[in-house]
Amino acid sequence: MSKERDREVRSYSEAGVDQSAEEKAMAKATDLVRATFGYHPGSRVLMDLGFFANIVDLGGDPCLAIATDSVGTKILVAELAQRHDTVGIDCVAMSVNDLICVGAEPVSFVDCISITDVQPGILESILEGVREGAQRAEVSVPGGEVAQVRELIRGEGEGPHYDLVGTAVGIVHRDRILTGETVSPGDAVVGVSSTGLHSNGYTLARKVLLEGAGLGLEERVPELGRSVAEELLEPTAIYVRAVKALLRSEIEVRGIANITGDGLLNLLRLQVQGIGYRLDALPEPHPVFQLIEEEGGVAPEEMYRVFNMGIGLCVVAPADAAERVVALFREMGHEAAVIGQAVEDAGQTLRLPKQGLIGELGGFRPA
Amino acid sequence: MSKERDREVRSYSEAGVDQSAEEKAMAKATDLVRATFGYHPGSRVLMDLGFFANIVDLGGDPCLAIATDSVGTKILVAELAQRHDTVGIDCVAMSVNDLICVGAEPVSFVDCISITDVQPGILESILEGVREGAQRAEVSVPGGEVAQVRELIRGEGEGPHYDLVGTAVGIVHRDRILTGETVSPGDAVVGVSSTGLHSNGYTLARKVLLEGAGLGLEERVPELGRSVAEELLEPTAIYVRAVKALLRSEIEVRGIANITGDGLLNLLRLQVQGIGYRLDALPEPHPVFQLIEEEGGVAPEEMYRVFNMGIGLCVVAPADAAERVVALFREMGHEAAVIGQAVEDAGQTLRLPKQGLIGELGGFRPA
Repeated sequence: MSKERDREVRSYSEAGVDQSAEEKAMAKATDLVRATFGYHPGSRVLMDLGFFANIVDLGGDPCLAIATDSVGTKILVAELAQRHDTVGIDCVAMSVNDLICVGAEPVSFVDCISITDVQPGILESILEGVREGAQRAEVSVPGGEVAQVRELIRGEGEGPHYDLVGTAVGIVHRDRILTGETVSPGDAVVGVSSTGLHSNGYTLARKVLLEGAGLGLEERVPELGRSVAEELLEPTAIYVRAVKALLRSEIEVRGIANITGDGLLNLLRLQVQGIGYRLDALPEPHPVFQLIEEEGGVAPEEMYRVFNMGIGLCVVAPADAAERVVALFREMGHEAAVIGQAVEDAGQTLRLPKQGLIGELGGFRPA
Repeated sequence: MSKERDREVRSYSEAGVDQSAEEKAMAKATDLVRATFGYHPGSRVLMDLGFFANIVDLGGDPCLAIATDSVGTKILVAELAQRHDTVGIDCVAMSVNDLICVGAEPVSFVDCISITDVQPGILESILEGVREGAQRAEVSVPGGEVAQVRELIRGEGEGPHYDLVGTAVGIVHRDRILTGETVSPGDAVVGVSSTGLHSNGYTLARKVLLEGAGLGLEERVPELGRSVAEELLEPTAIYVRAVKALLRSEIEVRGIANITGDGLLNLLRLQVQGIGYRLDALPEPHPVFQLIEEEGGVAPEEMYRVFNMGIGLCVVAPADAAERVVALFREMGHEAAVIGQAVEDAGQTLRLPKQGLIGELGGFRPA
């Protein structure tokens, strides 16, 4: 049970959520979920909760990998812009990008559209996005659900309104499972470019750009080179083909982290005793991040906690393999670069020296 | 892509949904989903959309089965009653009961809770239900998602409000896949008792009981022998253990239908050319169905389309095996009885002679 992705608010207190109470609630909740791990007599759950995806060992080989996620409030932008054909891509992306972090090959994806009204047009648009996402991720969509639940759903603009949840299943051979446990000091961290906000940080992004700065969705912003709607609806990158190629190559991969809510702190989910990360060569974030930071006066520690800041995926590999990893992602159409390294660190922190930030799971503080 | 489960309204026109436009939209939408069937290079999708669950052939054995569903507006009753520890059972039930219809053994389940506020207490209650459902279904819950999406979700009463979606995966050996294609004229239909409304028909049930009849949720209703809230929150029966025992037995099973939205018409999803069903021995429906019918003046064709009318699962088996099926379900704690039979019928209709109804996928009409 990962923590809710969508805490896209400047701070918990501002959102009226008591963080410590919430954390206590999550701890009790995850205990309940863990209690189920032995309920199916013929299989074994291999990972703890909180990793990108989990793996179920059915006894044979391969094992099953599974991840579920929701698009979150990016949907509100789609509703305001009346453009519904991209959030399906995000829905696929969120869960398949989690699956590849355990070394799994995504096979199938199912979605559930909870919608106020099943109207012609909108369903096709949403599912055209799901189809496009499935094509990019090389997964089939063997089923799904459209639940007309008018009284459960609300949104922005005229409607219909909807929520979009997806689940991806994949396979991974037992001896190819990735958990990050082999990450060693000196390993390189390769950062793979995101396409922008992906599907995280939309509460803050909307508040700053649409409310604070008063930008119109169809307004062309010179710094972005396109309209606000185009920028905010840019689909989440799908890294499946590139990671499949990487895992099929002779390159040794030690860890993969999907950079979603909590930003680069997701690297710390590759929990290895005594290992931290120092990222001293982060590329300049996309203009949209700079725009949000400036227009909203958002502190760097908040920017780096809420947004991916230009990096959608991190791959940890032995230092001497790093350039081959970079070259492979570039060949597969993703910009990539070595952005730092794994380091000995009893505190298991994430250090961003140029930004003057030190992070632990939960948040950053000034260094 | 099954049709939306939750069209719990007296008629489409009343709900402001244009049925033919909706059907056209669904047809185009399902074409988009079907287009994905070949997207994963190493596997094959075995069933068409619209069946209870789909099966993905990974090349080896067993195959993977997958089904996703949402609890729907039963959640609004949980919110009004401030009792959140049972809808998780429904969430598990909806998808595992679909999986068993293809002969699959459910293995794992993941849920996504889209919630307005992550508050202590409510998350634990919801997940206590999920845990209980998982135990009854003998599945692990290897992961899940809590998405705090305040602006996407609404509900009834004070809140927090939430939507609950689940996905179940299972396994089925290639030579044990059930599609209903071996159903033959003369086969018996065994009806297994539901526990009440299960998770379908809540828009109509709430409208009739809470609005029309003005019953309070905590009001004890003599006909029900308990309060309205207790009746409406009765968890959906989970048939997994019984069906696993059935499929392990020497009894030949020809088809299994989960009776959800569209009620007994779900039998017709076991589509066999030239086969219909005649159910002439349906048991008296639970008192809650009679109460809704009387209080709401709801026509029988609507009652039988919207509600399960006391039957949560149908099993089709050779006539001479029927009593063994009945005995097995009773041993496993579910009331069951032969309720009718498969018949030669070019129109593939469902006939309920005692009720004077003829049904096709989509609805009933008077006979």
